[in-house]
Amino acid sequence: MIKVGIVGGTGYTGVELIRIIANHREVEIKVITSRSNAGTLVSDVYPNLRGRINLAFSEPTLEAYKNCDLVFFATPNATAMFLAQALLDSGTKVIDLAADFRIKDVELWQKWYGEKHACPDLLSQAVYGLPEINREAIRSANLVANPGCYPTSVILGLLPLLKNGLIEPSSIIADCKSGASGAGRNANVATLFSEVTESVKAYGTAGHRHLPEIRQILQTVNANSNLVFSPHLMPMIRGIHSTLYADAIGFGDDCTNRTQQIFEDAYKGEPFVDVLPAGSHPETRSVKGSNMCRIAIHYLEESNKYVILSVIDNLVKGAAGQAVQNMNLMFGLEEDAGLQSLGMMP
Amino acid sequence: MIKVGIVGGTGYTGVELIRIIANHREVEIKVITSRSNAGTLVSDVYPNLRGRINLAFSEPTLEAYKNCDLVFFATPNATAMFLAQALLDSGTKVIDLAADFRIKDVELWQKWYGEKHACPDLLSQAVYGLPEINREAIRSANLVANPGCYPTSVILGLLPLLKNGLIEPSSIIADCKSGASGAGRNANVATLFSEVTESVKAYGTAGHRHLPEIRQILQTVNANSNLVFSPHLMPMIRGIHSTLYADAIGFGDDCTNRTQQIFEDAYKGEPFVDVLPAGSHPETRSVKGSNMCRIAIHYLEESNKYVILSVIDNLVKGAAGQAVQNMNLMFGLEEDAGLQSLGMMP
Amino acid sequence: MIKVGIVGGTGYTGVELIRIIANHREVEIKVITSRSNAGTLVSDVYPNLRGRINLAFSEPTLEAYKNCDLVFFATPNATAMFLAQALLDSGTKVIDLAADFRIKDVELWQKWYGEKHACPDLLSQAVYGLPEINREAIRSANLVANPGCYPTSVILGLLPLLKNGLIEPSSIIADCKSGASGAGRNANVATLFSEVTESVKAYGTAGHRHLPEIRQILQTVNANSNLVFSPHLMPMIRGIHSTLYADAIGFGDDCTNRTQQIFEDAYKGEPFVDVLPAGSHPETRSVKGSNMCRIAIHYLEESNKYVILSVIDNLVKGAAGQAVQNMNLMFGLEEDAGLQSLGMMP
Amino acid sequence: MIKVGIVGGTGYTGVELIRIIANHREVEIKVITSRSNAGTLVSDVYPNLRGRINLAFSEPTLEAYKNCDLVFFATPNATAMFLAQALLDSGTKVIDLAADFRIKDVELWQKWYGEKHACPDLLSQAVYGLPEINREAIRSANLVANPGCYPTSVILGLLPLLKNGLIEPSSIIADCKSGASGAGRNANVATLFSEVTESVKAYGTAGHRHLPEIRQILQTVNANSNLVFSPHLMPMIRGIHSTLYADAIGFGDDCTNRTQQIFEDAYKGEPFVDVLPAGSHPETRSVKGSNMCRIAIHYLEESNKYVILSVIDNLVKGAAGQAVQNMNLMFGLEEDAGLQSLGMMP
Repeated sequence: MIKVGIVGGTGYTGVELIRIIANHREVEIKVITSRSNAGTLVSDVYPNLRGRINLAFSEPTLEAYKNCDLVFFATPNATAMFLAQALLDSGTKVIDLAADFRIKDVELWQKWYGEKHACPDLLSQAVYGLPEINREAIRSANLVANPGCYPTSVILGLLPLLKNGLIEPSSIIADCKSGASGAGRNANVATLFSEVTESVKAYGTAGHRHLPEIRQILQTVNANSNLVFSPHLMPMIRGIHSTLYADAIGFGDDCTNRTQQIFEDAYKGEPFVDVLPAGSHPETRSVKGSNMCRIAIHYLEESNKYVILSVIDNLVKGAAGQAVQNMNLMFGLEEDAGLQSLGMMP
Repeated sequence: MIKVGIVGGTGYTGVELIRIIANHREVEIKVITSRSNAGTLVSDVYPNLRGRINLAFSEPTLEAYKNCDLVFFATPNATAMFLAQALLDSGTKVIDLAADFRIKDVELWQKWYGEKHACPDLLSQAVYGLPEINREAIRSANLVANPGCYPTSVILGLLPLLKNGLIEPSSIIADCKSGASGAGRNANVATLFSEVTESVKAYGTAGHRHLPEIRQILQTVNANSNLVFSPHLMPMIRGIHSTLYADAIGFGDDCTNRTQQIFEDAYKGEPFVDVLPAGSHPETRSVKGSNMCRIAIHYLEESNKYVILSVIDNLVKGAAGQAVQNMNLMFGLEEDAGLQSLGMMP
Repeated sequence: MIKVGIVGGTGYTGVELIRIIANHREVEIKVITSRSNAGTLVSDVYPNLRGRINLAFSEPTLEAYKNCDLVFFATPNATAMFLAQALLDSGTKVIDLAADFRIKDVELWQKWYGEKHACPDLLSQAVYGLPEINREAIRSANLVANPGCYPTSVILGLLPLLKNGLIEPSSIIADCKSGASGAGRNANVATLFSEVTESVKAYGTAGHRHLPEIRQILQTVNANSNLVFSPHLMPMIRGIHSTLYADAIGFGDDCTNRTQQIFEDAYKGEPFVDVLPAGSHPETRSVKGSNMCRIAIHYLEESNKYVILSVIDNLVKGAAGQAVQNMNLMFGLEEDAGLQSLGMMP
Repeated sequence: MIKVGIVGGTGYTGVELIRIIANHREVEIKVITSRSNAGTLVSDVYPNLRGRINLAFSEPTLEAYKNCDLVFFATPNATAMFLAQALLDSGTKVIDLAADFRIKDVELWQKWYGEKHACPDLLSQAVYGLPEINREAIRSANLVANPGCYPTSVILGLLPLLKNGLIEPSSIIADCKSGASGAGRNANVATLFSEVTESVKAYGTAGHRHLPEIRQILQTVNANSNLVFSPHLMPMIRGIHSTLYADAIGFGDDCTNRTQQIFEDAYKGEPFVDVLPAGSHPETRSVKGSNMCRIAIHYLEESNKYVILSVIDNLVKGAAGQAVQNMNLMFGLEEDAGLQSLGMMP
C-alpha cells in the first residue's frame, strides 16, 4: 500500500482527492492536514465521507507526513514551496496541485503570483504532470507540478495541431468556460449562489495566471504563441469547456479527415483522452466526476479555421484525478487505478 | 461472472444502472435493449459510457436475454409484467425497477396504474426489494420488485419509529422534495430546463402512486396509517429529501437520546443507512451518486413531534443502486460490491 | 414626490427596493447609505441600476436622512433600533425590513435575537406591516415593522382557516422551502454556489427566528399554536413555497368547496393575494419578481387534513415589495403603485 | 390606445411580450391566438398573468386580428409569411419575431430555413428591426423583421469597430453563450432540466441560421466577413453573452482609450445600449428581464486583438423587448415606453 498525506484537505480539490483515493485499492491516506480545521473529523466537514474516512484533520507540520510515501498539496498557491524541499529531503515524493512548480521561469512566476518564490532551485527538477506529454518523466519524478485546470483542457486540445504545424500559432484563441468550483471554497461574495446562478460572465480577459502556464507548454512543441486566453464563469459546479480557434495551415479539401486522423493517432492508447467523431459537440456533463478529456474537431472551410472543443471536469482531470494519475505513474501502478468512474449523466 | 441484461437502457435509471455495473467486477452486461434505439450504440446516446460499453441497443425480444442470469427492467411501469413470467420460466431472475410487482393487492395496483395487470399470479412471489427489511427473502428471490424512490426514503425514515410504537400512525406527514430526474427522460414541456429551474412546486398532493406503496409497507410493521404524502419538484437533477413529521408517543424528557439510540441500533451494520447525530441536517448532495441513505432525528419538545430528515439519491438508493444491492444479495456477492462510490461534494 | 432614504443598500433586499422604486412614479430616492461602501456609486455594485440610479452610497449618519419623508432599513437585524427614535422625532417615517420591531414581547425578541433591544418603548407603536391584516393601522403608522419572508407566506396561507375555526391549531405544520437569496449577500461558505446548487437541506428545525413572529400573529386570531416551522434551503435564488398542514375541523363532505369559498371571500379585493382554484399547485416562479402571493387549498379526505400551498417571492412580497406596499399605504398612494410587475415566466 | 394582436402566445417570446405589454400604458392586447390552445385562458398556461390578462387564446384566423393596429408574430419560423400580406393589405402593421423577413436574399433564406418562402415580394419592404441602425426606417415601416437574439448582441458589439475600420473583418470570431429559453418551449429531450443543468456544450459549430443574418447586416457597414459564429448552450434560462474577437487595425498605443471613446460616441443617447468602462466584465444577470444591451471593450496589446463582451436578455432585447421598442417607434410613442424594467439582480 502506498501511504499518502494530503495537505489542505478542506478545499474542493482536497475533498475530491480524498473521494477518489477512498476507492483506490492500493493507496492509503495516512494524514490529512488543515490548519484551520485541526482536530475536526474530516467527515464532519464533508459528510459524504462518513463511514469511510475516519481521520481528523491534523496540524500541517512536517512531522505529520513522516510515514508518507507521497504528499499531495491541495493548498492555495504559494504554500507547497515552503515544505517541498524538506519532504523531498526525507524521501517523500510530492505532487503540488497548486501552481508553485508549474512555471520554470521564476521571474515570470513571481510576476503572476505576486510573491517571492521560496525554493526556486526545485523548479528545474519539477516535472509538469501532464501524462500525455510527460509520461516517462513523471514515472521517475519526485516532484510533480500538477497542471492547472484550464491549461489541461487547452493544451490537450491544441497539441496535435501545433506538433504537426497545422495551425498558425499567433491566431490561437482559447475561449474557456468553467464551473464555479474552480474558484475554490472560500467565503466570497462573488461566488455566492445568488451571484453565480442564472448568469454568465467573462473574467480576467486582460490576463489570467493560467496564460503563462499554457504558453510555456505550447512553446515546448512549437514557436511562441501569443494566444488569447479568455476565461468565463458558468452557473455550474464542475466542468471546463474550452472552445479553441485557430487559422488552419495545410490540407485543403481533406482537412477534416486528415486532422481527425492526426488527433486519433496522437491520443491512441491514452486512457483519459477520448477523441470524438469529427463534428461532435462534447458536453461537460459527459465527464462529470470522471478523469476523461473529450475532444472534438471542427474545420470551417469558409473561414479556414479550426474550432476544437475540449471538455474536462476541472476537479478531476483538471486537478485531483490527474494528481492520482500522476501518483499511479510515479509508483508503477496501473495508470487508471482508482480512476475508472464514468461521467455522471444525468 | 454474473451475466445481466438491461431492458430499457435509454432512461435515467437505465443509464445509471449501466454506469454502476460498468465498475462492478463480478458482473457483465450481455445485452441492453431499447425498442426506440435498437441498432444505435449505447454510447452514442450516453457519451459518458464511451470506451467502456461497446454494446448497441438490441430489440427487446425474449431471445435477447437467453444468456442472462438476471434481467433488470429499467422500463416504464406496466412493461416488465409482460415478460417476467417467460424469463422466470427460463431460469432467469428478474429485478423490476418499475412498479409492476410492488403492490400485492392487484385491485389497488390496477386502480393506481390504470391498467389490467398482466401476471397477477406473480405478485405473491415477488419480494419487495428493500434490503433493510427483506434481506433474507431477497437472497432467495427470483423476482424482486425494486422499491420506488420516495418509498425508500420515507420507509427508512419511519420504520424504527413505527416498529417501536413511538409515533401515532395517523399523524404521519411525509413532505418530500425530489430532483427532476425522477420524472424520467421523456420529451415533456413540464420538465424542460426553463420550466423547472429557479422554481419549486408541489404536485400530486391529492394522491400519488407511491402512496399505496408506502402504506403497504408501513402496514407490515404497524397499524394502518393514512399518512399524508406530499411530493414536491426541486430544481436539481438528483436527490430526495423527505421531511417526516409525526406525533410522538412515549419517552418524555429523554425522547431525543432514546430515539437516537433506537435508530442507531436499528441500522447498525447496515451498509447503506447512515444515522447522523441527533439534530443534524443532511444535505441531498452528501449522497449524490452514492447508494447511501442519510437520516437525522429531531424531537421538538414544544409540539411533541418528531421531525425525521431522510435523504437519498433517487437514481441510486432510489433505483439503480438499490437494484444492484438486490442483485448482490440474490447472487451471494458482497452486498456493497460495485456500490462503494461516495457522494460527490461539491 | 415622496422622498425616501434607504439604509443598507448593498444587501439583496436593499437592491430590490431600489429596483422597484426606480419605476415608482411618485417616489424619489434621495439617499442610499452603506458604511462599507460609502463613496462608491450604487451602480458600481449593482450594474443593473446603471443609467437610472446615479447616487453614490453615503455614510449612514442621521444627517444623511434629513430631507427624507421616509427611511427604509434594509439592514441586518438590530440596526434600525438605534436610529428609529431619532428619525421619528424629526418627523421621518420608518419602515424596518429587518426584525427589530416585529416582536411585541421584548424578552422574547432578546431571547431570539441575542441582543438587548435599544428602544423597547417603540415596540408598542410599531405596526406589523402585513396589509392583509393591518391595512388601516399601517395607513396611520409612523413606524412599520415589515414582516419576515417566511411569516408572510405562512400567515397568509393559514389566516382564513384559523379565523374561521377550521383547523386544530396544535396540529399545524409549516414545511417551508426558500431560495438562497433569503440568506443575504454575505461572504459565507455555506451559501456558495458550489455548496447550494444541486442540493436540498433543512435547517433550523429545532428553532428559527421566524417562529415566534408567526406565532405572535396567529395568536391574534386564535388560540395559541405550537406550530412546527421547518425551513429548507432550495437551489434557487428567489421564492418561498410554504406547504402548510393542519387537521380539519368541520365541514365534512363539502370541505373543499366551502373552504375554497372562505379563502376567496377572505382575499376578495386584495391586490396581492391570488387564490387559485382548489387543487392547484402554484409554482414559485409564477411570482418571481412580483409582489403577489398565490395560494391553493387542498383537502385530503382520507386523513381529514388540509394542505395549503402558498408561494411568494421572498425579496418582493417577502421584503422589498411589501415595504413599498406599506409605504404606499402610509402616504395615501395607490396600494399597487410601483408594484405592477408580473412574475417572470420563464 | 394602440390595439395589438399576438400570434403564438404560448411560446417564451409570446409570454414575454404579454408580460411587457401588460405594463405598457398606451397599448392594449385585443387578441392572443394559438392553434393548440384555442379556448384556454392565457393565464391557465401562464399563471403569472392571472388577474391581469383575462383573454382566452383564439384560433389564429385573419378575422381574429381585424381590430388590431399591429400584429406580433411570436411564432415558429415560416409562419408569419403566410399571413403577413393579408394583414398589411388590411392596414395592419406587422412585427415578426421569427426569421421570415430577416434575410433579403430569398435563396439564402430558403437554404437555411429549408422551406419555400411564401411571400418573397415582401422581403424588400421589410425593415430589419434593430433600432440602433435602422431607427428612421422602422418609424415608417409597416413590416418589421425583429432581429434574432444572437445577431442583436453580436451586431451591437461589432458595429462601431467595423464602421470605423478598426478590425480585420476576416478575423472575427463570435463565441456566443445562450440560456436555454432560446431553444423555445417545445417538448424536447435535449432541453430537459436534467440534460441542460450542470453542463455546457457548443452546438451548430458548422453552421447556424443566425450566421447569414449576422453577415448580411455586417456587410451593410463593411466588406464581406466570413466571421466564425459559435453558439453554446448554458445552464441558465435567460441571457446571451457574446465574446467577440477580432484583429485590431489602427491606433497603436492608445487603442483602448480611443476605441472606448468611439463606442461611447456611437451609442450616446441610445436608450438600450450601455457601454461600460473599458476592461469591465458585464454579467448577463445585469440585464435579466431588461431591454438593455451592455458592452465592454478590451484591447489585448500582446496579441493586438480586441475582445468585446456584449450581453443581452435573449427574450427581451433579443426578442420581445426589442419588438416593443420597434412598436414604439412605428407608432410614435416614447421609445422606452413599457421597457423601463431594470435587470433583476439577484
